[in-house]
Parts: sequence; structure tokens; C-alpha cells
Amino acid sequence: MATSPDDPFLLSHLAEVRAAAVRIGPYVRRTPLLETDVGVVKPECLQVTGAFKARGAFNAVLRLVEVDPGLRGVAAVSSGNHGQAVALAARRLGVDAVVVMPEDAVPTKLDAVLRLGARVVNEGVTIENRDARFAEVLTDTGYAPVHPYDDWDVIHGQGTVGLEVAADHGEVTQVVVPIGGGGLASGVTLALKALVPGVRVVGVEPAAAADAAESFRARRHVRRPAGPTLADGARPAAIGARAYEVLIQRGLIDDVVTVEEAALAAATIVVWRGARLMAEPTGALPVAAVLAGAVTSGPGTVLVVSGGNVDPARGPELVARADPTLVQAGLGLGLRAPGG
Amino acid sequence: MATSPDDPFLLSHLAEVRAAAVRIGPYVRRTPLLETDVGVVKPECLQVTGAFKARGAFNAVLRLVEVDPGLRGVAAVSSGNHGQAVALAARRLGVDAVVVMPEDAVPTKLDAVLRLGARVVNEGVTIENRDARFAEVLTDTGYAPVHPYDDWDVIHGQGTVGLEVAADHGEVTQVVVPIGGGGLASGVTLALKALVPGVRVVGVEPAAAADAAESFRARRHVRRPAGPTLADGARPAAIGARAYEVLIQRGLIDDVVTVEEAALAAATIVVWRGARLMAEPTGALPVAAVLAGAVTSGPGTVLVVSGGNVDPARGPELVARADPTLVQAGLGLGLRAPGG
Repeated sequence: MATSPDDPFLLSHLAEVRAAAVRIGPYVRRTPLLETDVGVVKPECLQVTGAFKARGAFNAVLRLVEVDPGLRGVAAVSSGNHGQAVALAARRLGVDAVVVMPEDAVPTKLDAVLRLGARVVNEGVTIENRDARFAEVLTDTGYAPVHPYDDWDVIHGQGTVGLEVAADHGEVTQVVVPIGGGGLASGVTLALKALVPGVRVVGVEPAAAADAAESFRARRHVRRPAGPTLADGARPAAIGARAYEVLIQRGLIDDVVTVEEAALAAATIVVWRGARLMAEPTGALPVAAVLAGAVTSGPGTVLVVSGGNVDPARGPELVARADPTLVQAGLGLGLRAPGG
Repeated sequence: MATSPDDPFLLSHLAEVRAAAVRIGPYVRRTPLLETDVGVVKPECLQVTGAFKARGAFNAVLRLVEVDPGLRGVAAVSSGNHGQAVALAARRLGVDAVVVMPEDAVPTKLDAVLRLGARVVNEGVTIENRDARFAEVLTDTGYAPVHPYDDWDVIHGQGTVGLEVAADHGEVTQVVVPIGGGGLASGVTLALKALVPGVRVVGVEPAAAADAAESFRARRHVRRPAGPTLADGARPAAIGARAYEVLIQRGLIDDVVTVEEAALAAATIVVWRGARLMAEPTGALPVAAVLAGAVTSGPGTVLVVSGGNVDPARGPELVARADPTLVQAGLGLGLRAPGG
């Protein structure tokens, strides 16, 4: 399996990630690396639109506009964060956007997509029929589709997270990322494995949507519809074909771990109270893995908090669902730091 | 009034702030300057203990230990954030800490002080009797008191916020800070006015605790007990004597504005949802001033989000108390950015 930094596959993708960084630079934020009481965090909740998705969406839409300067619009399927990202990219680049969202999408995410000026198609849209509805939208509008994860331009955009981690952390040994469709995980893996010899990349997903963990163990592309989970960003039934190639076939990811919902709720509360960052549950997956003991964190470990689009009114619900022992342990993490 | 950067009063305090920065450097975080959808933010909620108070407390306790290497302990009166700061400083420097807190202090703040290993005295403690109880504690223990704001060492510690803003923002024209006892406001003012010719400093307090605004208008040291307010960190009945000298007598602060509770609740929600930072209501005062139109913000304006110690379970209460028009306006702020 290719893990040498001078592997041509890694080097060519690294070049694309670097090109993406230049392309999207004027439109997205270079998020800082933060030392927090829960560990070293890459806070993509502070990214424009509140999630890393802006990186991939801008890279993809900018590429579409480069190829076709007459492009009228773009279209996306999204439970929320990718929709916001495509809506913002379209707005900034002067093209139209249509976002197909499930009828039961998180209301704050729906509001945000509308606020960004996109047209939303959500009436009667379910997880089951949304691909068909999306196909209709593409036919009706002639707009270009922007896939939320299974697209190299999107993956290279997300890979800029890894580029920044490598640049800002002189001694990174491990990066922990949420896995949904695998766009972030594969982008970050491509950039980091090319830049930092020996670095570990670990993916985290909810136990209720453990298709990637199963794919990792079985070394085949497992598809399994997600059960109910707080991590609405990690619900794809399978990682994308490109992520499968990068992470599993080429063996570039070092581990995929899963966390239970009570640990995930606890981690969300711990990020809010201990790191004072507004993470959505999906974004708290790496911290959940640390709290649950599935990942060992230290000064060389970077936890990617991938997004922060969550309704603050859900605080009591999250507190109620959280494992209280893990909340207390999480809030004490800072005291275990050197000299703490 | 002294506003010239070569004023000896400013220069001698600037030297003390610089000395404080060196002294506390190993113990506190250099928080980044963040571009967010609500403006440029100095996120002291990301500071150790979740508030700027750690800067002043470390500077004061380090000075006490310098002067008396045999110091056994320190004591503080605090509704929460100063108590956490003194508790952490004592823990890190190997001395004892006692914190006198009102019996009705915010539970998450009480928990945090206890978690940091301080002894808490809160049984029967009210706003009215706490100074007397504190005097008893000092007599009983012989520990050194650390005032939450009316102490030059504390003020110089808080001033390091201003030092960092001046260093990180090449074109700062205005800094907006919450005012409670005036320690942060006076420290930041001393540092900034010495470093950045023409910079404006504006203080914000809740209308329910508008003693500083009244002092500013009347040019005398007004004392007025606070009414009920979400901003539990801005409740002192008067700013300290040292803050009064800096801000009012020497005329170094440019304005003090007040905000209503519905604007403050809205600002807290807007910081959570729009900036994805966990601010406590006191920390959201500068954003509230922008939302309410009392302060005009732009790329040269830095909003100091002073702290982030808040119970996430209070989300629904804050949503219910927030002015919904201001929430919607606040969430749309990012779209008014250049090219947005």
C-alpha cells in the first residue's frame, strides 16, 4: 500500500491540493490551529458558512467557471453544510444555485441556505427520493452538479485543511477527522501523507452509520443506510468511490473508529463548554473518539472540528443525551495538560 | 486630556503591560484575531479558563510570588471568571486558593472553580455581605488578596489583549470592549492608546448596570447597584478607582454605550450561530452594541469577546429572550461583507 511521500499518486494529488489552496484563497478563511482544553483543534466551524465544505465547493465551482465562463448556475444535494457552501460560492461568483434538501433537514441549515440566496427544493424530498429529484432539477435547469464529496475538485478543496495543519503544526503525528462521504478524510489524507512522513490519519463516524469502519475492516466498499444519529453530516450510506480508492484500496487511512450517540452528545457539550467553540455533533466526532478512548490524543494530535451549524436551542437535548461521566472527564481534560 | 502616544503616563503603563506579556506568556494563550461573520473578533473565550481574566490573575499572582517566594495562598472574590483565573494561577504556581462566590453564582462557573482545585466559600454569601466575608477569609488564612479589577497588576495583565490586537491588526481603528469593573477596558486602553495613534476605544455595558456610562457622561465616579442582567460579568456597582482614573479622569476612553437585555440575548445567539464561538452574554456585549446600532463596525473594528463560560442548556432561554429582528439582522451581517 502506498504510504511513501514520494509516491506519484500522492504527489500529483498534493499538486492539485496546492492549486486548490491558491484558487480558493480569496474566498475562504485560513482557520488557525487552536490549543484548547480538549486538545489541539483545527476549527473548521470558524470557516465561512461554518464548515469545511466551503473549501471544496469553492474549488469545484471555480473550476466549473474556469471551464465554462458562461455557466448560468450550479446545483447540489445536501442535508445542509454542502448546500450552504455551494450557495455561497455561487453567490460570490455570480451564478445561480439550486439546493435539493430533505424535507426534515435541520431548520437552521435550511434557513442559512435560503439566507445565502439559493433556491431550495425540499417539498416531499426524502433520503430515498432525493437523487431522483436532483436529476429532475438538473434536467430542468441545465445547471452543473456539484457533488458533496465524490468529486476530485471537492476532495482537493477539502485537502487544504491538511495543507494548513502541516504548515501550522511543526510536529503533527496524528490527525483525526469525521467521516461521512469521505471527502474531508480523503482530501486531508492525500495532503498530509504527502507532506508529513509517518503521520497517522484516523477517521471517526457514529456507530449508527458505520459503513466506513466496516469498509476499512473488510477492505471492500460497504454500503449501509445510516440509523438515527446526532451526526447529520455523517449519514451517507457509503463513502464515495474516490474516497474508497484513497482510503481503503490504497490503504492510506490508518484507522476508522466509531462512537456511540451518548459519547457524541457528551463531546458536543465538552467542545462547547471546554473549547468554547460552537461545534455541531458531526464536528465533535473526533473529540468523542478521544473521550470514548478510541483515540489517544496528545500535543501531536490535531482534532478537526469540521463544522458548527447547530441550533443553540438544542443545548438541553444534548445535555440530556450526553453520558455525564464523559462530560465530566472531558471538562477535566485541560487539567491533565503539562503543568495543568 | 492625555491621548498623545508619547505621554509619560501611557508610556510607563505600556512598559508594564509589555512586562506582563513576558511574565504571563508561558501560562496563557495568545488568542488569534478572527475574521467572523459578525466582524473581526478577539476571542478571549478561547483563553485558558474561558476568559481574559486569566491574563490579569496570572500577572498578579506571579508578582505576588516574585515578591514573596514563601507565599502560601491567594484569595479572591468573584462571580466566576476571576475565581477560575485565580484558581488556575494558584494551581499552576503551587499555592492555595480560596474563592468567595455569591451563593447564586452561575453553576457552571462554580463547578469550574471547584474543578481547578480552589476552596470555595459561598454558603450564605450575597452581593451585599461578600466583602465582609472576604475580609474574614483574609484574616483567617493570611492569604494575599487578588482584586478582580482594581489593581495595576491585574490591569496590566488585561492590557496584553490590547498589545496583541495592535500587533495582529495592521489597521485597527476601533476596539470595543465590555465594561464591568473596568479592568479590561482600562488595560486595553492603556496599551492601545500608546501604540496606535488615533485608535478609538469604546466600552459597552448592559443598560441595567450603566454606572460606567453614567460616570463617562457626568465625568464623576458614579456608583449604582446593577439591576438584573444576563451579563453577570458586568455587574460591579462602579468601575474601580484605577479604571476611573484611566478612562474618565484622563479621558482615555472615547465612548461608553449601553445595550438592552433583548439585544444582548440576540447578540449571544448571533455569536453562537454566526461566529460559532461560545460567548457568555457579557462577552457578547460588543456584538450587541453593533446589532443595536450603538457602534458602527467595519474591517478596522475589533470586537473583544471577553469570555465564554455559559451553560449550553441556557440556549432556549436566550433564544426566547432575544429580539428576533436583531437575531435575523445579525445572522445576515456576513453577507454585507465586501463581495458577500
